[in-house]
Amino acid sequence: MPGSRALAEQVGVHRNTVVAAYAELTAQGFLRTDPARGTFVHADLGLALEAGSSRRPMKRGDSQVHRAHSSRRASTSGIGFDLPHAADDRFGLPLSRIAGTQEPEPGTYFLTGGRPDPRLFPAALVARAYRRVLRREGRRVLDYGDAMGHPRLRHALADMLTKVRSLAVDLDGVLVTRGSQMGLDLVFGALIRPGDRVAVEAYGYPPAWAAMRRHGAQLCPVRVDDAGMCVDRLESLQAKGPLRCVYLTPHHQYPTTTTLPAARRIALLEFARRHRVAVVEDDYDYEYHYEGRPVPPVASADDGHNVIYVGSLSKVLAPGLRIGYVVAPAPLLERMARMRVMIDRQGDLTTEAALAELFEDGDVQRHIWRTARVYQARRDAFVVALREQLPGALTFTVPPGGLAMWARVEQGLDADAWAARALARRVWVVPGRHCHIDGRKRPYLRLGFTRHDESELVAAVRLLARAR
Amino acid sequence: MPGSRALAEQVGVHRNTVVAAYAELTAQGFLRTDPARGTFVHADLGLALEAGSSRRPMKRGDSQVHRAHSSRRASTSGIGFDLPHAADDRFGLPLSRIAGTQEPEPGTYFLTGGRPDPRLFPAALVARAYRRVLRREGRRVLDYGDAMGHPRLRHALADMLTKVRSLAVDLDGVLVTRGSQMGLDLVFGALIRPGDRVAVEAYGYPPAWAAMRRHGAQLCPVRVDDAGMCVDRLESLQAKGPLRCVYLTPHHQYPTTTTLPAARRIALLEFARRHRVAVVEDDYDYEYHYEGRPVPPVASADDGHNVIYVGSLSKVLAPGLRIGYVVAPAPLLERMARMRVMIDRQGDLTTEAALAELFEDGDVQRHIWRTARVYQARRDAFVVALREQLPGALTFTVPPGGLAMWARVEQGLDADAWAARALARRVWVVPGRHCHIDGRKRPYLRLGFTRHDESELVAAVRLLARAR
Repeated sequence: MPGSRALAEQVGVHRNTVVAAYAELTAQGFLRTDPARGTFVHADLGLALEAGSSRRPMKRGDSQVHRAHSSRRASTSGIGFDLPHAADDRFGLPLSRIAGTQEPEPGTYFLTGGRPDPRLFPAALVARAYRRVLRREGRRVLDYGDAMGHPRLRHALADMLTKVRSLAVDLDGVLVTRGSQMGLDLVFGALIRPGDRVAVEAYGYPPAWAAMRRHGAQLCPVRVDDAGMCVDRLESLQAKGPLRCVYLTPHHQYPTTTTLPAARRIALLEFARRHRVAVVEDDYDYEYHYEGRPVPPVASADDGHNVIYVGSLSKVLAPGLRIGYVVAPAPLLERMARMRVMIDRQGDLTTEAALAELFEDGDVQRHIWRTARVYQARRDAFVVALREQLPGALTFTVPPGGLAMWARVEQGLDADAWAARALARRVWVVPGRHCHIDGRKRPYLRLGFTRHDESELVAAVRLLARAR
Repeated sequence: MPGSRALAEQVGVHRNTVVAAYAELTAQGFLRTDPARGTFVHADLGLALEAGSSRRPMKRGDSQVHRAHSSRRASTSGIGFDLPHAADDRFGLPLSRIAGTQEPEPGTYFLTGGRPDPRLFPAALVARAYRRVLRREGRRVLDYGDAMGHPRLRHALADMLTKVRSLAVDLDGVLVTRGSQMGLDLVFGALIRPGDRVAVEAYGYPPAWAAMRRHGAQLCPVRVDDAGMCVDRLESLQAKGPLRCVYLTPHHQYPTTTTLPAARRIALLEFARRHRVAVVEDDYDYEYHYEGRPVPPVASADDGHNVIYVGSLSKVLAPGLRIGYVVAPAPLLERMARMRVMIDRQGDLTTEAALAELFEDGDVQRHIWRTARVYQARRDAFVVALREQLPGALTFTVPPGGLAMWARVEQGLDADAWAARALARRVWVVPGRHCHIDGRKRPYLRLGFTRHDESELVAAVRLLARAR
């Protein structure tokens, strides 16, 4: 190596800096100092010094960090190893990629489904609950803990599910997950082996399909009519090859918004019992039911222990809290919890404890009542605006619950082209093809009405009409 | 159905209750009312009323919910479908299962490795940061967001990694994960196809093995000596069949605590470059290096873009925050982010923003300095206690960093039996077999010294000595 004084001059730093650097590199084994002869690269390193090496000599003002910096930034896309062939995860794309844009432009109207209004998020409530939790049990919630979830939240959820949804479950029967997406991923991860057949609604929820496919499931679509999944088709599917499970959204069918009638629910349970098939019931926005009382889940009539019930607080509280839950037979829950340990070890115990507080204080229920009234009013205003500004262009049934509607586009109108023109005018809607398993053009739009207030919805519909 | 008055008497409720129940069941399609003739079960339901049905008639004081309640509680282990054969996830067991107990008894001394002291968790700091974040950007952090992680935290991490660890990365090169466990699970999920060969340290970190195996990897152990992984063995492994990646812990080798020397680091990088093999560097407790300065990561010399760098804030801040990060070539990070969307959609943006604040305010660095001094003092006290109370029973090198030590048990002493006797006296230690890939008896103990203060450590060592 150059003498410390010479190198200091070359690079333009104080000699002490070079001395310290040499000492550090020696301590780490890169250099070896011989007091009589000087400092040398350590022989053990086996580095070959080739003629014409691409390493140019260091110059004044030049620093190793700077060179490394620029070489890395110049080739951040560089990759020194081969990635295996990408798995097909087209259903796993977030909606933004589907719409063809990474980030919607500011001022875009979100008429995409399932988007609660951020202005209604209970941020102050949550902040206060966080503070209380950290003050009272900070050491516990910040430490390693139970992969099943904070027991207080599991108890609060079990209580709610038993009293309001007739599920008759205690805290041991509830697994808390980071949103229903994780619930689905754990269910399918624990249940599905590659090649297993899963019956799904032909119009359905793509992120669930993505979770199934990532575990190697073979998706078998079942026709959906104006009453949801055509359950009578399951027998013939089963005859072609045994089903591992059936996945569906019976309360507010995604995307068509209908509710599965009693006769089909009973038929579904009988089918499941007869063939020992699991039923995955995704009840993602149970609380928002506007007409009459919400329908009890299929799981509430499940004497045969076939149903796996997946729920979420994303729509009713806030999506960023990532709190969902799964009710399932104990052997399956146990497997899911063990799998969860290998994924992220545990949930966010601080958030879980904070939400338990909000349940116990009745804040969750009050928030649901308030926001349900707001969203029902928005639904009604949206319906009026559509009828006034787009008569004949869209045919729909007013949804009895949920955050979105499903509208048929009149003949002669191309739903995809209309959606693209609407996005150019900053109104974001989802064409029906993105909710069908074959991805082909469909004359439908899924329209969400909860993210904006009544006047914003009227303005959005006006833009949508102009884009027609 | 019985008349409402008769049923009310039978069940012991007010007649109005029965009337309301009939109305609800009618609305849901279970019953049908003929004003002239009465209320009937809906014909569409196709229910067969068999003689001698197991459904006993309802009696006074009896309620459907109550019966459902008791029938479900009686058979919570009931499951109406078949679970597929369980995957081998023995490495995925949490440490508590390994030690043979679900929950350690209260008052147990945790001499297990890697356990920061909950009394040192910065709970108040975190609480204040949560409050500020929710007040300032509550709508944003509680909404759907970026699967890569909150940009402020990615920027703060990139800044720290560039300045302190010479990684030369910007925010686009950092993926925030829920702990290093999720980082590892995403890396292996994106990189490994079933059957792929992965070189691992023969003494290593079982939760990482679990993550690899769950994606179908074939683990190929490499001998570990007193300087870490014997990197020169990789060539012959490669000759037997190409490796997809090498996983190791070069800074504080888990479990033996040694640091991989410079010569082996260079050889590792050259091997990786030559054969286009990925290197997964798990640097889980970088900041806690007591003697000299911490060694820069292998990733800091990675001109060939072979290294995937995984880090964590669990040890330095708190495990419950679940904040880890991965630095990797962009094509791999992109795949990992897409996969993450299908698992839990995104991280906890509130926590991520709160930690960004703590980084920006210098609180993280101050916390690291404080706790590092505390842990170093505890290490020293622990070493003294071991030498005084267990002379000859344990041989060890004082670890230059980290939260645990690796001690060889003298001949004639059975490490597993000793650990079991110690647990009976409420001192929890981990026998070396649990850190070796073949799981066979090993004459070692992994001993953590950070969860307890000096006097508690002395007391724990006394109990350990008595259990000998």
